[in-house]
Amino acid sequence: MSDRREFRDLASPEEARAVVGALDIDPGTETVALADASGRVLAERVDATLDVPGFDRASMDGYAVRARDTFGAGEATPETLELVGAVHAGEKPAVTVDPGTAAEISTGAVMPEGADSVVMVERTTETDGGVEIRTAVTPGENVMLAGADIAAGGRALGPGTRLTPREIGLLAALGVDEVSVSARPRVGIISTGDELVRPGDPLDSAAGEIYDVNSDTVAASVEDAGGDPVLYPHAGDDFEAMEGLLREAADECDLVLSSGSTSASAVDVIYRVIEERGDLRLHGVAVKPGKPMLVGTIGESAYVGLPGYPVSALTIFRTFVAPVIREAAGLPEPRTATVTGEMAVEERYSEGRLRYMPVGLVTDGDGSTLVYPVDKGSGATTSLVDADGTVAIQPDTEVLPAGKSVEVTLFSPDARVPTLFGVGEDDPLWSRLLDRIRTPRYLPTGTADGRRRLREGVPDVAVVSGPQTDDPGELLGGWEREWGLAVAPGSEVTDLASLVDGDSRLVNRDSGSGLCRSFDAELEALADKRGVPLAAVTDAIDGYNLTTGATESPARKVAAGEADAGLALRDTAEKLDLGFVPLGTERVRVLANTDRTGKESVERLAALLEDRAELTTTLDGYDVGAGE
Amino acid sequence: MSDRREFRDLASPEEARAVVGALDIDPGTETVALADASGRVLAERVDATLDVPGFDRASMDGYAVRARDTFGAGEATPETLELVGAVHAGEKPAVTVDPGTAAEISTGAVMPEGADSVVMVERTTETDGGVEIRTAVTPGENVMLAGADIAAGGRALGPGTRLTPREIGLLAALGVDEVSVSARPRVGIISTGDELVRPGDPLDSAAGEIYDVNSDTVAASVEDAGGDPVLYPHAGDDFEAMEGLLREAADECDLVLSSGSTSASAVDVIYRVIEERGDLRLHGVAVKPGKPMLVGTIGESAYVGLPGYPVSALTIFRTFVAPVIREAAGLPEPRTATVTGEMAVEERYSEGRLRYMPVGLVTDGDGSTLVYPVDKGSGATTSLVDADGTVAIQPDTEVLPAGKSVEVTLFSPDARVPTLFGVGEDDPLWSRLLDRIRTPRYLPTGTADGRRRLREGVPDVAVVSGPQTDDPGELLGGWEREWGLAVAPGSEVTDLASLVDGDSRLVNRDSGSGLCRSFDAELEALADKRGVPLAAVTDAIDGYNLTTGATESPARKVAAGEADAGLALRDTAEKLDLGFVPLGTERVRVLANTDRTGKESVERLAALLEDRAELTTTLDGYDVGAGE
Repeated sequence: MSDRREFRDLASPEEARAVVGALDIDPGTETVALADASGRVLAERVDATLDVPGFDRASMDGYAVRARDTFGAGEATPETLELVGAVHAGEKPAVTVDPGTAAEISTGAVMPEGADSVVMVERTTETDGGVEIRTAVTPGENVMLAGADIAAGGRALGPGTRLTPREIGLLAALGVDEVSVSARPRVGIISTGDELVRPGDPLDSAAGEIYDVNSDTVAASVEDAGGDPVLYPHAGDDFEAMEGLLREAADECDLVLSSGSTSASAVDVIYRVIEERGDLRLHGVAVKPGKPMLVGTIGESAYVGLPGYPVSALTIFRTFVAPVIREAAGLPEPRTATVTGEMAVEERYSEGRLRYMPVGLVTDGDGSTLVYPVDKGSGATTSLVDADGTVAIQPDTEVLPAGKSVEVTLFSPDARVPTLFGVGEDDPLWSRLLDRIRTPRYLPTGTADGRRRLREGVPDVAVVSGPQTDDPGELLGGWEREWGLAVAPGSEVTDLASLVDGDSRLVNRDSGSGLCRSFDAELEALADKRGVPLAAVTDAIDGYNLTTGATESPARKVAAGEADAGLALRDTAEKLDLGFVPLGTERVRVLANTDRTGKESVERLAALLEDRAELTTTLDGYDVGAGE
Repeated sequence: MSDRREFRDLASPEEARAVVGALDIDPGTETVALADASGRVLAERVDATLDVPGFDRASMDGYAVRARDTFGAGEATPETLELVGAVHAGEKPAVTVDPGTAAEISTGAVMPEGADSVVMVERTTETDGGVEIRTAVTPGENVMLAGADIAAGGRALGPGTRLTPREIGLLAALGVDEVSVSARPRVGIISTGDELVRPGDPLDSAAGEIYDVNSDTVAASVEDAGGDPVLYPHAGDDFEAMEGLLREAADECDLVLSSGSTSASAVDVIYRVIEERGDLRLHGVAVKPGKPMLVGTIGESAYVGLPGYPVSALTIFRTFVAPVIREAAGLPEPRTATVTGEMAVEERYSEGRLRYMPVGLVTDGDGSTLVYPVDKGSGATTSLVDADGTVAIQPDTEVLPAGKSVEVTLFSPDARVPTLFGVGEDDPLWSRLLDRIRTPRYLPTGTADGRRRLREGVPDVAVVSGPQTDDPGELLGGWEREWGLAVAPGSEVTDLASLVDGDSRLVNRDSGSGLCRSFDAELEALADKRGVPLAAVTDAIDGYNLTTGATESPARKVAAGEADAGLALRDTAEKLDLGFVPLGTERVRVLANTDRTGKESVERLAALLEDRAELTTTLDGYDVGAGE
């Protein structure tokens, strides 16, 4: 395997920033219609080419007069002027206001010849053929002179101005219907790797195919940064095809990003193309996640190779690439949203690289923010959404003790701390309950993990099932669920004994799930009844040790023909059109962190659990059993 | 005039919020492609329909082995296994790993039958036909089991989730290529008023026509709030046409906004249409700016009538309408960006309405933020861009003293305090200089106002010209400019005397401009020479009192044939292809607030002014004269 792939000489993050920053991805300028200009950045100054307003304009409804005719007028001493006509907005005045006369005028109308001020309607009374004026005005009063808002030739907006609705308004007032703006850098995105399949296309998992995550993720990120993403068709690891694609993208784009493959051959092909057609400037950066980053040029285009794992690719993109796209687009760096919180648990790290540790946030009972690491490995796509931001940990920091105050950079200024954070057993009713809570986070890591983490005090709630031993926290409520074995139609398995005594192959759940514990309890009862040790019973079941981490997985293996029986809920067996051998019911319990029972979301959850009738209705007839 | 227009019974802001909030503008849901889903909001829960990964997956480059074969292996006690083949990412394994054998494997590849773990390449050495293993692994080590990331049937994302690049990534991993999202509410925008002209179309100012500002401004604002703006053609004040347009918009949209006209007839037409086809629920709100707001329904659609003035329309939109559009679109309220600062000057207000006072921000020398009111009247479009945010002033607050701490709600979270704030004389070279400073704000209100405001200590710099009397602050630098009279070709005006003694009609600048002061000084010299009082000279000039507020305005009036001579800079006369009668040169001075000379932007400006050569080059040959 290639030596290069080990990335021995890693650049520092500062070097990487400098190398990426030195890439030329200036997209030039373009002209866009005003209606499409919102969010864009002016390429050049806009001067007014006309006066706004374009005429002396009445700024009140009332009467256009000569100010000197109102001298001395007041409530007690009204002055009556002859009414010579009216001027409405959008018409050329047909009257002249001579001394001793007045014309009715609407807000926005052109001041008629002779008039120099407007008396507001509230201080007047129309009389027969005239108008009584009950206040004196000065020349120019209630009139906006031509050009007083902005005059022809004046500077309206400078280059580099970001166009928001307000600037759009000023441009519209000037009659501008198109503007020259910084073009959005075209960013080509190439996913590499023979294993990648576009979402929506059929997937052959047995052949190691996976859906292409990075193309859409990076494209959406490019767009957020003000770039114009161009997705190229997926490239395999073939040199000719890849070279053609990279050259095409480099010809058409200001910046080319490749990403997706973790295979050696794809990386080698990219190296060869850069060496033949461009310049490799950086190769590996001392950041976790994200080490294998490439920076260089291909032809006239800038090039950055992102790591293959989505979390790594996104970290590298956010840290090094997004700033240069924004700069090329003329956009300011966004106000980074940060939150200060306390580490909920200790975190150790000793690889000696700058680490952007993904973290989740949870609000404690006293309103303070707790921070917990989310580390499922960069290969996990769920870790994309299980974190709220990152904590930058310097290379020389090996331990962050629990309680330590840290600053979290949120993934976006719009990011919100989840209202409810739960951990524990997976359950279909629970999933539907979560739909009724705004922005919850739930990690379905099983009953044992839920109990453990609730004891550590991090989540708001834990959901547990199985034998009711030693539940921590405060019980909010729960429901019954029927469990047993999902079997293929016509299966020889009809009860527990037939599973133990027959040849059927089982798929079990892992020992951290409550369901597995309930199953073990039934097996133990059978062993007791038979007067044999538990092991005698479990050893007799083919596949007892074949465990899976998720609720539906055993049943799905049965549905796929890979097993004869799977530990399952009735709900799952029915959903997958499988037979179901009931073995018992167990109670699912929602346990609250005792410090958090006053939290709004926990109270809402408690209320939902309380109302059995509503629960049953909402949850589509699911029998929730009696309350506690 | 209609009584209604006086809006006698104003609703409180809370009532208005409740009435607008009760409007039904639910746009339902729609299905969009994943590539277009970024920023949208999930309408329903997405459960995984497949396991991710879809197979037991190597998470390291190395050798797939049976863990028990590595028992006891270490650096000093290597274990050699027979090499039976290789598995790459994206291919179906063609080998089986039997006891005593190993297969080369790439990151992301399918684990071959028989193997349960991967030994990383760094702890191995290939030998002839075999591989030396120098570490022991446990079952499952360096393998991600099928479904370990997310299992089929598991909850992936809940309803109401806003899709960012991270959620897009998870959906892609699940093979999802389209999702059901909250539709964006369709918001129809109708501009009313006979006087309105679309930007880009020709304008007849003499007939009181103005460009339609609100349509584009409101459309951009609707888009920012997550709505889908639909611009309807401009409606005049004719009942039939307006009724047709309102009905069409109400049929096609979830919400109809009208805006633009300040004319009584347009408002009356809207009243009639609402009365005939809908329901008027609110009529006027006690907020400044923005009083004349209408809320109701037309047919099945919700309706809000915005005030005509752009600043008022935008305030009403932002305060009352944007929140309901966001809610209908499923978007969270944006994190409002606020800045705390001190009032730079006193502000008095006593209308007894809640006031959203537009304010500008400037950073003081010590880094603190000063806040100054921006109130040019709602009719001014420049006030759209001359403010950075608003301060909410409660109805019972009549005075905000200078120094009072206030909280400013920025117009957007991206809003930045301008780097440089200047006030004073308008000048073409200065305008080009400003192009070289990032996001400056400059109010060209003339020399006298610049001096006054610099004395008050609000701006960073003032730009002044004319006689050099009593300049406040610290002189940063300056340049010479040649001034005189712009005249039509063949004009009888050839010098000052011919202007005074002839019949030509002049357009002057206002007395606050430095240029006007320089002109007066020359006239005074002429009067002295002739031994007459100044008034004898100025009275002899037709139009001496005809003043304009902007640099180019007098020359433009000459170009338009409305005057014979205009006080002007040589630069302006040349730009407009007019003749030029030079009368003198004056020095333009840039004066800094003495507290702000250490500010980065002021230092940059000083450096720019210092470098005469660069200045001349940059400014396209403009003769900047000698330095101070």
